[in-house]
Amino acid sequence: MDVTLAPDEAAARARGRRSRAGTQQKLENLLSAAAGLIAKKGYEQTSIRDVGREVGASLPGMYYYFKSKEDLLFQIQHRTFASLLEAQLAGVDGHDPPDRKLRRLIAGHLAFYARHPREMKVCTFELESLRGEAYRDIESLRRRYYRLLATVVGEILARTGRPDPDGLLVRHQTLFVFGMLNWIFMWYDAERDGPVERLGEEMAETVLQGLGHTCGDPTSRASSEGAV
Amino acid sequence: MDVTLAPDEAAARARGRRSRAGTQQKLENLLSAAAGLIAKKGYEQTSIRDVGREVGASLPGMYYYFKSKEDLLFQIQHRTFASLLEAQLAGVDGHDPPDRKLRRLIAGHLAFYARHPREMKVCTFELESLRGEAYRDIESLRRRYYRLLATVVGEILARTGRPDPDGLLVRHQTLFVFGMLNWIFMWYDAERDGPVERLGEEMAETVLQGLGHTCGDPTSRASSEGAV
Repeated sequence: MDVTLAPDEAAARARGRRSRAGTQQKLENLLSAAAGLIAKKGYEQTSIRDVGREVGASLPGMYYYFKSKEDLLFQIQHRTFASLLEAQLAGVDGHDPPDRKLRRLIAGHLAFYARHPREMKVCTFELESLRGEAYRDIESLRRRYYRLLATVVGEILARTGRPDPDGLLVRHQTLFVFGMLNWIFMWYDAERDGPVERLGEEMAETVLQGLGHTCGDPTSRASSEGAV
Repeated sequence: MDVTLAPDEAAARARGRRSRAGTQQKLENLLSAAAGLIAKKGYEQTSIRDVGREVGASLPGMYYYFKSKEDLLFQIQHRTFASLLEAQLAGVDGHDPPDRKLRRLIAGHLAFYARHPREMKVCTFELESLRGEAYRDIESLRRRYYRLLATVVGEILARTGRPDPDGLLVRHQTLFVFGMLNWIFMWYDAERDGPVERLGEEMAETVLQGLGHTCGDPTSRASSEGAV
């Protein structure tokens, strides 16, 4: 159905689109500035006023976007985890063999970290600053992300034939990988350590060998060692 | 040389010893209570007065032991890292093969964590709350600990013949291990996950295989798989 708008209405809609785009861009800027300040000073030490000052927004302007300081922290964490999860789900092809999926998940996590180090730091250090429903919402995203990686680790372990009657081996190995991934904000320095792509290959190699994936398969070992 | 003390002098010395022991015990209690509060509420949110209240000490009593709140944080971190480093140095026999050294270091770290989870959490989350000389003192202990593990990782990698011209492979693999070790305070639950001894064996196995240590050596793989 072709619907022709009256000129006034069309102009109003275009203004509405521009204004929504502007609002969205401003929200992005506010969240980014807030993540920077919270990553540096800690959540408790950062006020909504500090964030406003950083980006030239008034206090009422800030409360147009955020109900409270906790809402601001929630929005940083929600946006970060939801984008990470979306990118990781999109990056993994269900038909790939599990070792390729693991490589993609590790590379994808590190690439996301390289683009959003301050947001990731806030997610790690300030989860416990959230309460109630906000805490549960973020925890549920974290669980979905955990299950994505745990499923792949489980597929790799299943192929090695290592027994795991209580499921704890999959759980522990998955959490070891999250430990390696998340700890990098304590030490990673692009200039010293090289690009995250290199780090990702080293990490994936270690994890796959550690899980027993490439042991006893000379072809895959030779090719994967070349990638280190 | 036998020196006999006058009765008064002997009694005074005994009182001195008891009093030093009492002071030492009280300091331990204060540091432990402070670590508990800081681990729970964060450093910024914890006052010296809060800690005193927790253990029934007055504010002047607290300032007898600590010059400032930062001094209290420094003492928690210094005592924790110095004990951990001392225990780890004592637990490793220089004549052991590197894989045994790695197993001992991983087991030792996790055993220490199991005894001092709150102190370890404070060390991880609150390093950056220290400034100047205090920060540098703790950083120097951390570096010594890093070097202890990096040396062992380097010995293992050297045996595999993997090239590491810029030394970054040793650095990254060492930091991956620290990631696995330190991340456990985010998830470890003794009741669910079993004793840290089991966790340590699983982790050591993964790291050794990941570094390429046991691959291609069926005897050592078979025996080490039995340990998981």
